[in-house]
Amino acid sequence: MTTDTDALTHYLHTHIPVSRALGITVAEAGETVVVRAPFAPNINHKNTVFGGSLQVVATLACWTLLHVNARPLADGDIVISRSNISYISPVTGDFEARASLPESAVWRRFVAGLERHGKARIALQATIENQGRLAVDYRGTFALVPHATP
Amino acid sequence: MTTDTDALTHYLHTHIPVSRALGITVAEAGETVVVRAPFAPNINHKNTVFGGSLQVVATLACWTLLHVNARPLADGDIVISRSNISYISPVTGDFEARASLPESAVWRRFVAGLERHGKARIALQATIENQGRLAVDYRGTFALVPHATP
Repeated sequence: MTTDTDALTHYLHTHIPVSRALGITVAEAGETVVVRAPFAPNINHKNTVFGGSLQVVATLACWTLLHVNARPLADGDIVISRSNISYISPVTGDFEARASLPESAVWRRFVAGLERHGKARIALQATIENQGRLAVDYRGTFALVPHATP
Repeated sequence: MTTDTDALTHYLHTHIPVSRALGITVAEAGETVVVRAPFAPNINHKNTVFGGSLQVVATLACWTLLHVNARPLADGDIVISRSNISYISPVTGDFEARASLPESAVWRRFVAGLERHGKARIALQATIENQGRLAVDYRGTFALVPHATP
């Protein structure tokens, strides 16, 4: 399934203003999600990409992957419970985080959990390359849970 | 040792523009560092603080802790190699990340590594509370290394 990337970008910019401040755009949104960001607003004092920006873009790639693929199955809030990130090498230009659905058995277990309990948890991965080599390996645990009642 | 928090805030805003976009300020800068951020620019679609913003502020608290305490000992670049973060509960207003030097034996080992090899690695922690309760537990591994030659 593919969703309009412009609409997703607009959704992020409207609801998560940090995504606009960092210049983030959604470039691909199906069973693989690609989220892009430009170099200039994300630099650090060493003139490479700030580690916090890499984390934000990776997080949003995974968030969007779940948003696009799980929302048609169940309404609810996407919640992140933890993540870890390895900064393997510096990123020195415009960059993108890429996240794909996990192997089908893992995804089916997540969907079955949603159907049975109305909530489920899944581990997702996003990667960022620099000049064709892996620069960032991000793993996050996300859950889809019923909307919090105010 | 304490360093001028306004000068540190200015340094971050100048060299890491994401810190300015998120409204980050350094509130305390000694053996404990406190980095603050306002709610509004950091919200998400659930009207709590975006997980990426929490990570950025925690990262900058640890970065500033090392910047303030290790720079007088050795020149070099601060590099982050990995981090993990647990999102324990939502953050619902202005927030701050707090990072303190680890126990003295750990710090002494780091300083000895710097003196002996000109570089060393250390694990740091930052926490964020919400209404008096732990909301975010962040651990990052940072290194101080000789300046990269261009």
